[in-house]
Amino acid sequence: MLVDGKPYRTVWMGDDGVSVEIIDQRKLPFAFELVTLRSTEDAARAIREMYVRGAGCIGAVAAHGMFLAALECADAGDFDELFFRKGEELKATRPTAVNLAWAVDRQVKVVAGVSESDEKVALAKQTALEVADEDAAWCRAIGEHGLTLIKAIAEKKAPGEPVNILTHCNAGWLAFVDFGSATAPVYAAHDAGIPVHVWVDETRPRNQGARLTAWELGQHGVPHTVIPDNVGGHLMQHGKVDLVITGTDRTTFTGDVANKIGTYLKALAAHDNRVPFYVALPSSTFDWEIRDGVAGIPIEERSGEEVSCISGVPTGTGAENTAKDGCEIEVNLVAKGSPVANYSFDVTPARLVTGLITERGVCEASESSVLSLFPEKRLS
Amino acid sequence: MLVDGKPYRTVWMGDDGVSVEIIDQRKLPFAFELVTLRSTEDAARAIREMYVRGAGCIGAVAAHGMFLAALECADAGDFDELFFRKGEELKATRPTAVNLAWAVDRQVKVVAGVSESDEKVALAKQTALEVADEDAAWCRAIGEHGLTLIKAIAEKKAPGEPVNILTHCNAGWLAFVDFGSATAPVYAAHDAGIPVHVWVDETRPRNQGARLTAWELGQHGVPHTVIPDNVGGHLMQHGKVDLVITGTDRTTFTGDVANKIGTYLKALAAHDNRVPFYVALPSSTFDWEIRDGVAGIPIEERSGEEVSCISGVPTGTGAENTAKDGCEIEVNLVAKGSPVANYSFDVTPARLVTGLITERGVCEASESSVLSLFPEKRLS
Repeated sequence: MLVDGKPYRTVWMGDDGVSVEIIDQRKLPFAFELVTLRSTEDAARAIREMYVRGAGCIGAVAAHGMFLAALECADAGDFDELFFRKGEELKATRPTAVNLAWAVDRQVKVVAGVSESDEKVALAKQTALEVADEDAAWCRAIGEHGLTLIKAIAEKKAPGEPVNILTHCNAGWLAFVDFGSATAPVYAAHDAGIPVHVWVDETRPRNQGARLTAWELGQHGVPHTVIPDNVGGHLMQHGKVDLVITGTDRTTFTGDVANKIGTYLKALAAHDNRVPFYVALPSSTFDWEIRDGVAGIPIEERSGEEVSCISGVPTGTGAENTAKDGCEIEVNLVAKGSPVANYSFDVTPARLVTGLITERGVCEASESSVLSLFPEKRLS
Repeated sequence: MLVDGKPYRTVWMGDDGVSVEIIDQRKLPFAFELVTLRSTEDAARAIREMYVRGAGCIGAVAAHGMFLAALECADAGDFDELFFRKGEELKATRPTAVNLAWAVDRQVKVVAGVSESDEKVALAKQTALEVADEDAAWCRAIGEHGLTLIKAIAEKKAPGEPVNILTHCNAGWLAFVDFGSATAPVYAAHDAGIPVHVWVDETRPRNQGARLTAWELGQHGVPHTVIPDNVGGHLMQHGKVDLVITGTDRTTFTGDVANKIGTYLKALAAHDNRVPFYVALPSSTFDWEIRDGVAGIPIEERSGEEVSCISGVPTGTGAENTAKDGCEIEVNLVAKGSPVANYSFDVTPARLVTGLITERGVCEASESSVLSLFPEKRLS
């Protein structure tokens, strides 16, 4: 997608052929800085210290990191042994990131299939590019399927009147390689000339909506408005939301959706006001084991400091215009001595979900509908 | 209620007999500072610049401000004329605050009933005290009626297991003269030895929950945990909330509840999880005219800067421990160029409200039940 009018992905090969480029997403939206990765350790640090986040993006950066690992193994005695160990190093940076392990394992397997060192390196490079291209292709397909939903709403509106879409957290291109999941239909509609406007939940406590989603939509020229997470219900009561689209961290094959904390509240409001509530996901996000998402999906509890402290650019300093490195400062928001709880995700039951937008098309949030789109997952 | 172990109200007469004391609530929770009001203009500034907020508290401060006004009128040629003008000055500070106008008008009327200047001053003082005492008495009665609800829940729990109550925004003693509305049952239960624990919604964008409710509960020794506004639904899904109690800015006689933005989302979650959802209010908060709250109650839109900027104490400085004046700084949270919307309130339809806790008792959120508690309001 566009940044300052120029197309970007979240990860790409350096011009020198032996490095990888990423965006330091920790500094968005106040600074747009690229970082060059030159070693496995660089890639590990970028993942561990959350320069990059989001399942698709982490997977692609890991695949590219394994290309850097292959370069480091080229002169080693036992390429495969060392390559495997570097893969384990990468996997340890965020142990619960499924896409990370998947990308590393894919590289290890592919590289083991050829014997010459330079063949291995070439194959690792090709695989990294494939992982990124596949991710982008999935998201593009999600965008095309979601576009038909937006188009149908736009056709019932007066000409020029925008389709109002509410989203929560960042399931944007920054979380993938390109396009994003929840944002892919939005970008597709915008690029097709359909007027859209996005209500962006700020998404406390980490404010990924206000920081990342608002920034990426703004850079691509998509009209949007940041709102506190408390506002969506009121907007829906007053006909100001036509459609909700969120991403998901894990969705059961029965249609229960784990996503950023607060998603469930928006789904309840959408249901109460008959606003369609869609979840966009590449099929790699399905959990084919868990039947009851509310009971079965473990919810991570994180540090209370993510709630009690927040970072931003001091106002009145003009710092938000200069986007200098390190201009953010952290402030404490909570009374001393007050405990704070920080649950990362919640689970929206399938009954509140209008449909799932996948790379293969749109289905209902039910076992039968999901399996009709992914028949190879049927137990036989 | 207690601050540092000492009982306080939000407004009281100074020891010198010619001044009024308040708490500068803008500085809470990082500094507890009292301010002495010595003139009508001091009282006007305290209301206008939001040293104090909350319907009951504003009304009581205005009533006390009119006592200061009476002192200033004592030597004037035409007491009543000047007293009236000073009242208009006070009323202009927050034109939409119903309790403010009500308290001023009450003072003007009472004072007009006697002829001597020193009688007028004595009556203005007595009326100020009455307004504060009445507010405290209403809140205390709300607490006693709400206590029976909490007691009933506690009796079904294992001994020592706390009743978990979720609240949104600050409808605490800081918003009234004492006890608060939503917090009154909590304080009553705590003081009666019933173990309670309060989930405090931080309440974006102005964070009255994290700043005020958490502070006042903490000072009074009530166990509590601050949570982002996104969390309540998840807690209810997992049986961690026994009861929701919120305040209200305006409730229709049909039971529709206008309260801080985001209340509606919590009511939806409570309904979905069969958690009782109560609203506590002195009967002065009823709107006896509007039948359909969602359609009829106007919702204030405020500056987007309340969302995009937030204040706190810089971390790592130790400033939060020293509580020095002016130690807070403001930071910007939102990407430059991203518009922000800021709706202050939403309306929870009566169908989602289990009951209303008033100074006369608990009723259902319905016209018939409200009118059976307040029969004098029936149109005949």
